[in-house]
Amino acid sequence: MKYNYFAAADIGGTKVTVSIADSNGILIKLYQRVQLTGRNTAVPEQVINLIKIASEKICTPLKYVQALGVSTASPFIIRDGLKSVAAPNLCGGLAKERGAIPNDWCEIPMEKVFKEHFKCVLIDNDCVSAVIAEHLFGAGVGEDNLLYVTWSTGIGTGAIVDGRVLRGKNGNAGHGGHMYIADDDAQCGCGNFGDMEVLTSGVAIARMYGGGISTKEVFSAYRNGDARAREVIERAARHFARGLASMNAILDTKLIIIGGSVFLNDGDILQPLIESEFYRSFPALSSGVQIKPSALHSYLGDIAALSLVMPEEWKDPWKRERPWEKAPETVVIE
Amino acid sequence: MKYNYFAAADIGGTKVTVSIADSNGILIKLYQRVQLTGRNTAVPEQVINLIKIASEKICTPLKYVQALGVSTASPFIIRDGLKSVAAPNLCGGLAKERGAIPNDWCEIPMEKVFKEHFKCVLIDNDCVSAVIAEHLFGAGVGEDNLLYVTWSTGIGTGAIVDGRVLRGKNGNAGHGGHMYIADDDAQCGCGNFGDMEVLTSGVAIARMYGGGISTKEVFSAYRNGDARAREVIERAARHFARGLASMNAILDTKLIIIGGSVFLNDGDILQPLIESEFYRSFPALSSGVQIKPSALHSYLGDIAALSLVMPEEWKDPWKRERPWEKAPETVVIE
Repeated sequence: MKYNYFAAADIGGTKVTVSIADSNGILIKLYQRVQLTGRNTAVPEQVINLIKIASEKICTPLKYVQALGVSTASPFIIRDGLKSVAAPNLCGGLAKERGAIPNDWCEIPMEKVFKEHFKCVLIDNDCVSAVIAEHLFGAGVGEDNLLYVTWSTGIGTGAIVDGRVLRGKNGNAGHGGHMYIADDDAQCGCGNFGDMEVLTSGVAIARMYGGGISTKEVFSAYRNGDARAREVIERAARHFARGLASMNAILDTKLIIIGGSVFLNDGDILQPLIESEFYRSFPALSSGVQIKPSALHSYLGDIAALSLVMPEEWKDPWKRERPWEKAPETVVIE
Repeated sequence: MKYNYFAAADIGGTKVTVSIADSNGILIKLYQRVQLTGRNTAVPEQVINLIKIASEKICTPLKYVQALGVSTASPFIIRDGLKSVAAPNLCGGLAKERGAIPNDWCEIPMEKVFKEHFKCVLIDNDCVSAVIAEHLFGAGVGEDNLLYVTWSTGIGTGAIVDGRVLRGKNGNAGHGGHMYIADDDAQCGCGNFGDMEVLTSGVAIARMYGGGISTKEVFSAYRNGDARAREVIERAARHFARGLASMNAILDTKLIIIGGSVFLNDGDILQPLIESEFYRSFPALSSGVQIKPSALHSYLGDIAALSLVMPEEWKDPWKRERPWEKAPETVVIE
């Protein structure tokens, strides 16, 4: 097992991170702004290039990298049996505002490009990867029915039901943010009116408060007793909790793990608001459900994609030793 | 395999049906009003009694019945590892209106009672059983990602994702009717305000129209050009479609099968209304989803519970020969 290296990539709307690990831990992490210009293969080619740089920096030939796990913004569409990414925050051709993203892509042939370089490639939505990682190493260890929800600039979800990860026909079973929550005029980036993301996300909280202040500033205003901040945050939390109750009505989960910057920064305000609304819903379904913050939080970017391809025999030692906490500093590539 | 008999029971808020089948088909079907008085074991004891009557009528000793499949109103709670039913339409102690149901039960120890009589007992929610049956014999044959939704006096759901039936921690992953759909004052029997059931069910359509007329009469009024009926039905269909889009955002399904009396009676009105709203939602998720009526419809009561326990070797012949269509007339037991 001398040459047993695995690569992981985390692809979001603003950045790409890439890492390489061996059985002892993460050896290197690179970070680069996501390249949203050029051909629609630019992003996966950027990832491949970063993996090459990473492998050179650790003096490990690329051929020793056994597999690549990719955690990415989505949704996916399937082309010739392979996952392409059709995410409005990466593809300018799908964005609500023309020109907001400097390309006219409608899809990114992610799996196709990666398969040209790696025999084993596993690609999942970032929240599906996150629920797998929380289940293996985080707040969901030992639980067969759990849900991961990110409360960040957007809202995403990933679920394990009866011990199995939900993927669905195109791997898109992680889009709880696009569930309808209310009859409302607010339009989400996806086109839906009144969905969970447009009513509760970090961006939504800032938009609903108005005046151009940031989400963080809305929470500061809440802490300073600002009545409008209270109204906006309570409404968002109420709708967020109703979204959780809706997911639970479909999935009958045991544990809801919440991550993402909005919740992790201001969970002390949000958790009681969420709980008071959530447990008010149909008691036969809501009672017995636990709501917990993510245990991996800032490490998810490093460990979620890797979880997709990690060999079975690494898992127990990694549970004990938590090597992601001792990973080297991220190297920023300009 | 001479003594290879299987029993099935379908338990709803108003009636119980029981059947016994062998590999060639359904041999007998009994129907009785559900007995909601006495001890909280009354309903499963009623089912056992009906199975005894049925086995006598076909001159087959009860010991030749290999297993019992039960499709029932729910939700379930788990007591000592066994499923109890805590359904507000069976348990007077849980009903919204006191006195509406003539008992004070809070749960029915369904599996416990059945296990005293049968070694093999499988109990599922009626819509979970229905999706299994539609997948085996109905509109979902060959599909790995499908959803069954009943649009009847209430709303229920059952899902198969990635080829596997979703059950969840207590077997309650079939309660899409209790997803929140709108901020609305209407209160569901489950206690939720603004959920799918209270905004779209047959009962809801009659209630929203008002004046004490039936759901059927609201649809007749719609066909006669009544403006209020149009408004009520269009609103219900819009909310129903938003519920389907929400479920699809979580499950990434391929096929939505709709059953239940409301849809099966007036699907010609409802299907185009649903489709126009559903396909307006996030195209990356909604496009490629098919919406179809149930293929088993009136047979579901007979075949769904049986599907839970049917031996593998029966399935192909039953697919070809559809023996449920040739089942004997139901015998009504007073």
